[in-house]
This record gives sequence, structure tokens and C-alpha cells, in this order.
Amino acid sequence: MGELKITFLPEKRSIKVDKGTDLLTASIKAGIHIYNSCGGEGVCGRCKVIVKKGKFVTEHSGRISEKERKKGYVLACRTTPESDIEVLVPEESRLGDIEVLTGEARTKRLAGLYTPAEKIEEQPYKKEREIFKHGPLSTKLFLKLPAPTIDDNCADTDRLFREIRKGGDIQIMQMGLANIKKLPRLLRESDWQVTVTLGSRNRTTEVVLIEPGNTSTKNFGIALDIGTTTIVAYLVDLKSQKVLGAKASHNPQVDFGEDVITRIMYAQEQSGLEKLHHAVIDTINTLIYSLAKEQKLTLDDITAVTCAGNTTMTHLLLKIEPSYIRKEPYIPAVNFMPVIRAAEAGIKVNPRGLLACLPCIGSYVGGDIVSGVLASGMDNTDKLSLFIDLGTNGEVVIGNKEYFVACSTSAGPCFEGGGLSSGIRAMKGAIQSASIGKNKLKLGTIGKSAPKGICGSGIIDIMSEFLKHNIIDRSGKLKDNEICPVRERDGVKEIVLVDKKSSITGKDIKIDENDIKNVIHSKGAIYTGIEVLLKESGYKKSDIKHVFIAGGMGTAMNIRSAINIGLLPDLPEEKFEFLGNTSITGAKMCVLSSEAMEKTGSIANKMTYSDLSTNSSFMNNYSASLFLPHTDIESFPSVKRLL
Amino acid sequence: MGELKITFLPEKRSIKVDKGTDLLTASIKAGIHIYNSCGGEGVCGRCKVIVKKGKFVTEHSGRISEKERKKGYVLACRTTPESDIEVLVPEESRLGDIEVLTGEARTKRLAGLYTPAEKIEEQPYKKEREIFKHGPLSTKLFLKLPAPTIDDNCADTDRLFREIRKGGDIQIMQMGLANIKKLPRLLRESDWQVTVTLGSRNRTTEVVLIEPGNTSTKNFGIALDIGTTTIVAYLVDLKSQKVLGAKASHNPQVDFGEDVITRIMYAQEQSGLEKLHHAVIDTINTLIYSLAKEQKLTLDDITAVTCAGNTTMTHLLLKIEPSYIRKEPYIPAVNFMPVIRAAEAGIKVNPRGLLACLPCIGSYVGGDIVSGVLASGMDNTDKLSLFIDLGTNGEVVIGNKEYFVACSTSAGPCFEGGGLSSGIRAMKGAIQSASIGKNKLKLGTIGKSAPKGICGSGIIDIMSEFLKHNIIDRSGKLKDNEICPVRERDGVKEIVLVDKKSSITGKDIKIDENDIKNVIHSKGAIYTGIEVLLKESGYKKSDIKHVFIAGGMGTAMNIRSAINIGLLPDLPEEKFEFLGNTSITGAKMCVLSSEAMEKTGSIANKMTYSDLSTNSSFMNNYSASLFLPHTDIESFPSVKRLL
Repeated sequence: MGELKITFLPEKRSIKVDKGTDLLTASIKAGIHIYNSCGGEGVCGRCKVIVKKGKFVTEHSGRISEKERKKGYVLACRTTPESDIEVLVPEESRLGDIEVLTGEARTKRLAGLYTPAEKIEEQPYKKEREIFKHGPLSTKLFLKLPAPTIDDNCADTDRLFREIRKGGDIQIMQMGLANIKKLPRLLRESDWQVTVTLGSRNRTTEVVLIEPGNTSTKNFGIALDIGTTTIVAYLVDLKSQKVLGAKASHNPQVDFGEDVITRIMYAQEQSGLEKLHHAVIDTINTLIYSLAKEQKLTLDDITAVTCAGNTTMTHLLLKIEPSYIRKEPYIPAVNFMPVIRAAEAGIKVNPRGLLACLPCIGSYVGGDIVSGVLASGMDNTDKLSLFIDLGTNGEVVIGNKEYFVACSTSAGPCFEGGGLSSGIRAMKGAIQSASIGKNKLKLGTIGKSAPKGICGSGIIDIMSEFLKHNIIDRSGKLKDNEICPVRERDGVKEIVLVDKKSSITGKDIKIDENDIKNVIHSKGAIYTGIEVLLKESGYKKSDIKHVFIAGGMGTAMNIRSAINIGLLPDLPEEKFEFLGNTSITGAKMCVLSSEAMEKTGSIANKMTYSDLSTNSSFMNNYSASLFLPHTDIESFPSVKRLL
Repeated sequence: MGELKITFLPEKRSIKVDKGTDLLTASIKAGIHIYNSCGGEGVCGRCKVIVKKGKFVTEHSGRISEKERKKGYVLACRTTPESDIEVLVPEESRLGDIEVLTGEARTKRLAGLYTPAEKIEEQPYKKEREIFKHGPLSTKLFLKLPAPTIDDNCADTDRLFREIRKGGDIQIMQMGLANIKKLPRLLRESDWQVTVTLGSRNRTTEVVLIEPGNTSTKNFGIALDIGTTTIVAYLVDLKSQKVLGAKASHNPQVDFGEDVITRIMYAQEQSGLEKLHHAVIDTINTLIYSLAKEQKLTLDDITAVTCAGNTTMTHLLLKIEPSYIRKEPYIPAVNFMPVIRAAEAGIKVNPRGLLACLPCIGSYVGGDIVSGVLASGMDNTDKLSLFIDLGTNGEVVIGNKEYFVACSTSAGPCFEGGGLSSGIRAMKGAIQSASIGKNKLKLGTIGKSAPKGICGSGIIDIMSEFLKHNIIDRSGKLKDNEICPVRERDGVKEIVLVDKKSSITGKDIKIDENDIKNVIHSKGAIYTGIEVLLKESGYKKSDIKHVFIAGGMGTAMNIRSAINIGLLPDLPEEKFEFLGNTSITGAKMCVLSSEAMEKTGSIANKMTYSDLSTNSSFMNNYSASLFLPHTDIESFPSVKRLL
């Protein structure tokens, strides 16, 4: 097979590939991140590129309009070069530069009840400490052992254990053969002054590491949030409890499929699981390496890693076969991961450092949600709370300190900008807010930059404003109006928000009736999820005392708008609270406190997973929810007044 | 460097070695086992060989008499060939064919109080079961799991754990990543019918192994006694509790030094620890392999190994540096070994099978003694028992269910036939008994074979008879008499027991005053050890209700004779009981019962190690004991009457 040269524009990055390699596969090799949500099946139509030079064969796709075809648009996954070729990857097909929320949102503290996280820069753990005792996943203890004498002649390990136990009662203490072998010489060469690293491992205490002298001031941990789209890493000083740095990256598994289902399918292919695993591990290692470098630490200084991720992400991280997650009756291999050495998963920190994954609940409610519940503090009160994570799946949890019910609503990626004709993630240039005043639509973009597309909070605002001003009706149809002119393209009605001349993508930024339908389906799924969980637990909406909102959209979302379109229940605004990225907050709490980590176990144990896909009451309620705000307007009295 | 050919006679085994290699080193390479107790330092004089042909250089040694020199005797360790050479290894310099006690001695059962082991062939575990619940180190459980449904959708691991827990309460259950990875496919391919192997690991329960289908009837364990001289292995059916086979071998570490001290010194040399470790592991693997082969088992069928050995043997088994054991204040690296995978130590059974070593007490009281105490049952009664292990060190334990004190008397190898001019181990042809009747000495040999030398029980009988018939006086001097003529050689008085014409070694079998002195020192050390422990624990001899005797000498020893020479305290004979090899008995109990294994921990915890080498009362009492039976004849009233 001959080799062909593929050059990606505008960066002019070239790569040689075997003949027969499609452009999407080539782009992955070249490190160019192209959107695709179907795993290269030619279905999603996200991977549009423009061939500028060279011969190729391509498959016809309904996802590419006649106009686009004339401009040279093809689907990267369905196109194979026949000669050396130059390919332009347009802005809208790229995964944008990452500007994700690594931090937790600022939250007001609910007096005495619970103490969710605060912004990193403001001593994030200060408040949590009031609940969870500081006691990291791995603790360093400096010990001055008495030298043995004829009268005090216990074995080296017993001497070590005796000294460790002076610090407190330890039920089961373990030390592996590797450390026992090191011990005799190390103790004597260090004049009986050593630092031990103690790790919490499945309700036993392990002597993870023994070092000569006093290294107890240098002990660091990593907290990870492994999202389907984004990976966030915190470097935490386990002694001072400070977050020293935070970094984020795309989850490069996106190259193999945008959502968990396509990735699980990819995992079943030849060495698919291997590739997915390495993709995430390599990224984690890069993040950790650069965090450590910034703080002038070595990887050996890092002895503990905690990780919150959804069930599939956790399986892929540990290279555990995920295939039964997507097959009825949807069974994960494991919910409660054992604490292992991080090295076992391929994570490069101290070779004996530990990795603890937050427990999952079921196939579609994972450790990220348990982490969120932990971070919200909703398990510390007997008042009923509602927790909503507005990620790709839209997970919902209802409960209090007695029990929880949780579901995943499969809401789709609307609120992350996915599934919309002009949708983008919350990045620079994303339209994140909208308001209509004096018969004019005003748009706000992130970073006040030139507009690039619409993100989650933007579409919610736009639809709410359109509904209020009668630009869409309650079924989601666009109506002729004087504020935003409606036009029709290919038989679909649409409103152009930003003309292509003003948009930096060179294309109109618009909203069409299909977009609106998608949003209605998404918000309907989440709202119905809330309804079903309330019903299952015998509560009504008014019993909800607090609503916690987690997820990438963060504080940008307008609560009023979200209620107006029927995404959130019609409750007083002061009950709502944004928590930001609770997955990373919980992971951080767990690396700093074994008590918090244990709490995740008890949260997981008292949480019941409700599978909506097989729930008949979900099906009934769902169709009623496909209206703005809802078929039953009486359940949204404040919106009824407004309209 | 040139190569020289060395041929060992009479087997005519040849080996090529580099010039400069000594004959002892060459013999090890050739697989010829030559005695040596000093590790090749030219001190012990055990490695005598006769050069029959070829040139060599040798060092002068006082260990070789003028007569021997003329016959061509040299010390193998001090002799280096200068040409191709032929060397005869005489019978007395060889480690004899192994005929060690693999079995436990038959014992009478002490009604209701404790139930020591019985002979293998008679359901060895039957009686122990009355004390210890059957519950092997690794148990196999066949499980029929309910297949998951939408309503019963817990994760695979949770499903497995739930089913396991139906069998009983398990506090901490662990399963490693390797098994989790296997689980999803294995469960489904085996139609949810699997066999799990559960292991007891440091007070947690580990899912060691998961196999498809029902393999629960095939679960086997190995019990090991790793002695300084001999290694014994039992193959145990963990289900039926039967011992299926027993095999023994020399401990090939003998090649590097006969006692633990020389081996510890050898371990400090370049790759010495490595060599000692591999010597024992290779032998263990050979024993296990041949036991398994006999029973038509695969090594994978063996999932558990227990091991009782003295502290140094246990360190060498696990390749843990032993050097501080022999340096004041004599500190082992570890007394309580963690349960590890047998493969970690290099033992070839199921790769995930477990290895549990019985705990040690201190540098010179090890897991073999803890095993003996367990096997004796002396920890189940509030009556005072005395336990004596007549091995190389002569360990003594006194105590009851409340506490134990233990010491090692450094008695030397006399009672194993070492340190005597005609001493040999208890093997075919060894003189094991003696009596004087009608003014004639009658000797009994093992296997009624032609005599080869004197073993431990033989020397005790001979000295007792000599004392009774005034052939030696109470200080150990040989006296002219009419029964056994006394002669003098090289200024040392001696009695020839078997003329060289009747001996199969072609040398006189004799006893001289140096031999007698050695025995007196040995018996004195043990007796004084007993005295010191009694004193330390505030008891007197008459408080002792039972005396358990363990060790290679087994049942051959005559109690009356041992009292006569002052080795054993003067107590009624019915208080004495022979237990045989208690080290292997205890190891077997532990592989069959986790309760027994736990008991070893509590025995070890309540046992205090008394270091005689620094004990002033030992020094005082010891010199008083260097008389037959003792300087204080009043403490041996029955002997006083006899004399």
C-alpha cells in the first residue's frame, strides 16, 4: 500500500497515511480534533471538512447540502484520499480551544445545613472541613523510632507499626512485601527517622511508602473529573489542603465518538478498549505532568489520585469492558471500584501512589453524580433537595440524608451546544445570554467576543425571550413577528440571530424549528425525570427545599428563563443554587478526606437508580412535557402569569 | 582462566570448573551434597574428601589428623585443583539420603484438654477439627447467580458479592482489578454459574479467583515446613481435609552453610541472598510439582500455601534481608508476614494462589515454634505446659492459654547427630538406641541395617547407659570398665562401639570425651533454658503438667535416658508426649483452617521471647548444668536413686 500525504489547513499540518485511510482517522493521527458524535459512521454529519486540493472518493450524505457540496464540503469519516491532498477543517467542525469550567461556582452557603464548595481561589476546602475531617487518601507521617535494644527487640515492622499506632487506633494495617524488603536497611541508614505514607485502602490502612528522613511536608494529590467531553485535574496540597493548580483538557476519546454509547461500541472493536483507555490516560498524565512542573514538584511527590467520572468513563479509565452497560438490562461490571495503585491504571504519579474512583450507581448514573451529591451536602439534611447535572445525559437526583433516587434522562447535548444548527460549547464567542427590549434582540457573548455560535445558556434565554414575546408558540413553532424576521430554508422555518458578515465563522448564526424541537425534547426529558423521581419517592414539587444545579453551563444559566421554557420546576428562585463542576469538587474533597470518600460509599448505597428507558410513567409524562413550558400550564403558575 | 575437570567418586559425576574453584563450590555445582557447617570457611572440618588422582593445593587444617592426611583426606572448601582431578566423597561427609520424619508422631490424646496431631494416614485433621473450624486459607464456592434483569440491575461485582455474602457475614471483601476485568465476560459465558475462590488475607476476604462452572470440588493446598536442614511439604485436599501426599528434601541451603548464622553471613555476600532464596524456592517447587503429579493435579488446582519456618528461613523464603538477625540486638525485619500471592515469593502454584507464613516471635524463635505450640494445643488449657523442639537450636516454650515465654538455647546440632565424631542424622543405619545387659552393650539401628553412625536418640541412650554402669563419671570422663574398653587416641579417651570391619563406612564408630562434652553442653543449654523460663514466669518444675517434645528425633528418644543425662527435667514419664514434626502439623492446620491461622497470631502475640545470650541467670545456671545429670543431683531425685 502506498503512502499519501494529507495536509490539514489552515495550520498546514501534514501527515503520511496508508492509502485507504479516511480523513477522520488521519485527523486523529495528526492531532487535529474534529467533531464527530457517531464514531465515524457517517451518521451525525459533524465532521464536515473542505477538500482544497487533491483527488478523493467520498460517499454521498444527506448531512451535506447541495450548496456545501459545491464548495467542496465532505464528511471526513466518509472520504478517502486517492492522492496527496489538502483539507481545510472549518471552525465549526473543530473542537474549540478548551475554556472549560475547572473551578467550582461560587455558592451561597445554606446556614448550618450544608456547606457546598466555594471558588478555588477562596480556600475551597475551608467550609467542607466543617463537615469532613481532614485525612487525605494518603497521609505522610514523620516518625522518630526508638532504636532497638536487647529489651526492646521487636521486629522492624512491629516497631514501625507501633509508632504509627501511637497516632491513633488503626484496625487493620497492611504492608506489602516490597516495603518489608526495603525496611531493615532503610531504617538503619536513616538513623530510625523515616516518613511513612499511609493510604486508606478498602477499610484497611496500608503503609504505601517509606522514605528516609522527614518528607512529610511534601505530599500531594490529584483530583480528577473525567467527563465524557472534558477532563479536569486539580493538584492538591494534601497537607495545607490548598488547590495549587487546575488544568483541563478535552477528553480525546471524543475522537472515537462523542457520547458514551458510541465509545462503548468502539471499545468492542479490535483494540478499541485499549485505544480509548490510552487516550484518557495519556491526557491525564499530560495534565498531571504539567501541574507538577508548574509547582516544581516531581511525580513521586504525588501519592494519591481520586477520580469522579460517569460509569462508562470509569470503566474506560480502568480498561474494564464496558459493553454490557449499553445492552439491556444495562449492567456495569463494577460500581464500587477497589482502591488500587494509580500505576495499575497507567497513571504516572509515585509508582506506589493510590487511585480511588468514586463509586457509581448504575450504568447511567456514575461517580460524577455521587461526587455532586457529596459536594452539594444534600446528604446532610432531612430536607428534600433536587440535584440536576446538566451535562450530556442530564442526571437528576432527589433525596435527603435518608435515601436518594437518581435517573439519567438522556437529554442529549443541547445544553452543551450540541444538536443545534449553530450550537457550540460554552467557549469564547458563544452567545450565552439574550434579552428582548424595545423590540430588539440583544445578545451577550462569552468574553464579549465576536459571536461564533450559541451555547446552552444562550439557547435557554433565546427560547424564553421568544416565548415571552410570542415569537414562538407553546408548541415551538416560529411565528411571524416584528422583532426577529422568520425565513424558510429547505422547508424549515428559521431566525437568523447573527448575519454571516458579523459571525467569525462566516456563516449565519441561527435558530430553526428543528433546534427548538431538540431543546423541547431535552428540557422535557429532564423535567419529566424530576416528575418521575418525585412520584416514585412520594413527594410533590413543593416539598423540594433546595435545587442544586451542576454542570458546565455553570452560573451563566438564567433560572427564570429555564423555568419559562419548562426545563426547571416552577419554584421560587431563591431555592436554586449553582454549584458549577461538582464532579471535580467532590473528587477534591475525597482526596483530602477519607471521611468524604467513605461518605461517597454511603451515598451510593442509599441511592436507587431508576431506569427511565423502561419506565412507563416516564413515557406518559414525557409527551405531556413537549410543550412550552408544559402541556399542563397550571404546574407553571409563574409562567402562566407571564404569558 | 583454564577449565579443569573434576570427577566425584564413587558416582563418577564430572563437572568442568574454572581454575581456582575450590572442591566444595565444585561439589555444589555438581549436585553432590557435602556436609559443611561453616559456609566454607575451613572451620568446621565437615567437608572431608579424599583426592584420588590429580594435582591440587590445600590448606593445612587441624581438623584433619595425620593419619587421614596420609590417606589423601583434605577439606573440600580449602582445596583447589591444579589439574583434572578425581575426588572421593566418603559416606560420612555426605548428606545422607533423606529419610526424614515427614509425618507427625502418634500421640495419645489428653482427654478433653487438647488434641494434638495424629499420624497422617489416620485422618490427621479429625481431632484438630474439634478445636478449629474447617475453613481453609482459600475456599471454593460454587455460585449460581440470578441473571440480571431491569429490576435487578446491580453491577456484576455487586451481584457476585451479594451471592457470596449469602454464605455468611463477610466484613471486608476485596477483589482486584484483574478479576474485575475478567468478570463481565466470564459471568455471561458461563451462564452465571461460576466458582469463586475466597482467600483470607489480613482480616479481609479476597476474591482470589473466578472460574467458569463448578470447580469447587478441586481445591488443594500445600503446607510447608522449612527447616534449616530439611524441607517438608504436604499436599492437602482443602475440601476433604485429607493429606494426599507428603514429601521431604534436604534444604539445599545447606550447601551454603549448615546453620542459620552462616547462611545469614552468606546472604550478605554478592547475590548471596538471591542464591539462598532460589535454593529453597527451587526445592519447594520441585516438591510441589511431584506431589501434584502423583495426584494427577495441575499446579493451578493449588490455591493456598502455608509455611512454618524459623525466622531466618522465613526471611530467606521471602528474600528479605536477614542480616540484622545476627547482629546485636538481633532484630528480624518482620515477624508477622502479610499474606501474599505465592507467586510473589516464586512459589509455583496457581498464579493467584496465596502464601501465608506462620508468624515468628523473634530472631531465634520462629514460625516453626508457633506452629508447634498450635499443634500441641497447649494454648487451650490453663495448665502449665512445656514444649521442647529438639532441632539445631533447641527451642523451649513454657506457658498456658494466658501467655508464653520462649527461648532458643543454641544447643547445637548434637541431637541431630552433628558435632559428634561418629554422629549422623536419623537415617538408615543410624544407631538410635543402646542398652547394657549382662555386661554387654547392645545397639539398635534404624531399619536394623548395618551401623553407619550415631544419631541423637542413640547418643542419649549410650550416655545414659554409660552413666548408669559407671563407664562415664558425672563430669563426663570415661572410666576404665569391663564392658566397653577405653582407649586413647591423640590424647583423647574414646570407646569404640562398632569396629571399622562391621561399620559400612569402613571407619570405627566411636564416642570420645569431646563428644561427651558436646552432648553435656547441649543438654545443659536446653535444661538451663527450661530453668530460666520457669524462673522468669514464676513457676517451679512440679507445676509443669505436660511436656511436649517435637523435632526430628521423634519417638525414638528414650525419655528415661534423656532424664538420666539431665536433658529433660525429672518428671513422671507419663507427663511426656512426643509430637514429631509439629512444624508441618501446624502448617497443615493453618492451610485447613483460617481460625487456626488466626490462632497463630494470638499465640505469637502472647509469647515473649527471652534472649538467653544476654541473660545473666542463664549464664549462672548453665555452668551448674554441665554435669550428669546436673551439679545439683537433688533436682533429679529419680536419677539419684538410680545411681
